[in-house]
Amino acid sequence: MESNNSIERLDYMPGKKRYIFQRDDVFSFSIDAVLLARFAKVPSDSGKVIDLCTGNGAIPLLLSLKTKACIDGVEIQNILSELAIKSCIYNGLENQIRIINSNILELYDEVSWGEYDLVTCNPPYFALTSEKGKNVNEKVSFARHEIACTLDDVIRISAKLVKQTGRLSMVHRPERLTEILLTMKKYRLEPKKIQFVHPKQDREANMVLVEGVRSGKTGIRTLPPIFVYGNGKQYTKEFKELYENW
Amino acid sequence: MESNNSIERLDYMPGKKRYIFQRDDVFSFSIDAVLLARFAKVPSDSGKVIDLCTGNGAIPLLLSLKTKACIDGVEIQNILSELAIKSCIYNGLENQIRIINSNILELYDEVSWGEYDLVTCNPPYFALTSEKGKNVNEKVSFARHEIACTLDDVIRISAKLVKQTGRLSMVHRPERLTEILLTMKKYRLEPKKIQFVHPKQDREANMVLVEGVRSGKTGIRTLPPIFVYGNGKQYTKEFKELYENW
Repeated sequence: MESNNSIERLDYMPGKKRYIFQRDDVFSFSIDAVLLARFAKVPSDSGKVIDLCTGNGAIPLLLSLKTKACIDGVEIQNILSELAIKSCIYNGLENQIRIINSNILELYDEVSWGEYDLVTCNPPYFALTSEKGKNVNEKVSFARHEIACTLDDVIRISAKLVKQTGRLSMVHRPERLTEILLTMKKYRLEPKKIQFVHPKQDREANMVLVEGVRSGKTGIRTLPPIFVYGNGKQYTKEFKELYENW
Repeated sequence: MESNNSIERLDYMPGKKRYIFQRDDVFSFSIDAVLLARFAKVPSDSGKVIDLCTGNGAIPLLLSLKTKACIDGVEIQNILSELAIKSCIYNGLENQIRIINSNILELYDEVSWGEYDLVTCNPPYFALTSEKGKNVNEKVSFARHEIACTLDDVIRISAKLVKQTGRLSMVHRPERLTEILLTMKKYRLEPKKIQFVHPKQDREANMVLVEGVRSGKTGIRTLPPIFVYGNGKQYTKEFKELYENW
């Protein structure tokens, strides 16, 4: 039963300044969302932000700790957008964060085209052809696979949402870096900054953060890498600082 | 005077298994060449390798420690190609390494088009429009600025030199990563592997190693980063191992 409250829970977000409603049977926020909220350069309090594929609203909830700008969040799954709305109200943020329950491909007048300073997105990571990360739970598959929207869709729509000099910050799998950079170029979002996340110092990256700037000058900076775990299962000091210090 | 031998010197290469002739007034080999020689996956002894923009031959000299494959090196500057030839003879490698004194844009029958297993290249890093790294010494400028060939030239020619499934391994400035990946795609060299080099763990990357494979499948791996210096001016243990252990 979709509305079974017994599986719903209220969790602290890292830093313990925000609460978030989560459910076992839908996609919960992960390190990826937290690192993206950290990575994204937010506008001043008079700005506008939109988070695509917002899920249960983790990114808007964390971004609200960095700016008082209006934040829209768009989520296709009804069950997730309801959780996001509940969390916004619980944290007293219903005037700053607005959750839109829609497919990003079907956005019309609900959003301010060409007016956002920042678009953030933690999109589904896997192309539909990929076997990776397939999940028998359909509601989780939606968040992991490009069922409702592709990488091209996300970047194309982001390019239309941002104003001149606005930025898109996204987190993705590093395997798809070439495709991400190519697609950003295609829609005139110039890749300006990347940062790789490695599970450990001697392991390949398993996450990448990318920032593109509308009509930006060519030239990309590669920030110092992030290592999640040090020895054993301990977070590194640097990761703990990024993850928990809100 | 170009042939003034008083400024020529014979240096050890890292690992002390190869000697190299160098001169103060032309481009000397650097960390970049050593890390590229380490990064490149060499073919078996029956294979073919070509190093574009070889300078004084540092990359062929080091690659000869990893394979007995035939290695061609192409260098436009007469003075550098002469140093490279002298070094090959001095190390007894004149049967394995052949130095071609030519602009890579003017290669015809001297090379085996479509037959190389591996192309390596440590090209000029700076576009002619860039002010970065400008050098009053014209012979050094040649090696740093895209005077004789552009990034597009290097990748286009590499794509013609490699056989099916052959690879291009290059080192470049990370600022130009987007352009490198786009250009590789354009010439059907699929980017398969990247590795960033940071001067220190908490600093942005200042070098990137990239491998493209002819007609390879989409999907790129990001190797663990390399940090050159640890605390102070000491090389890190990992860098020392890569740099010196030949």
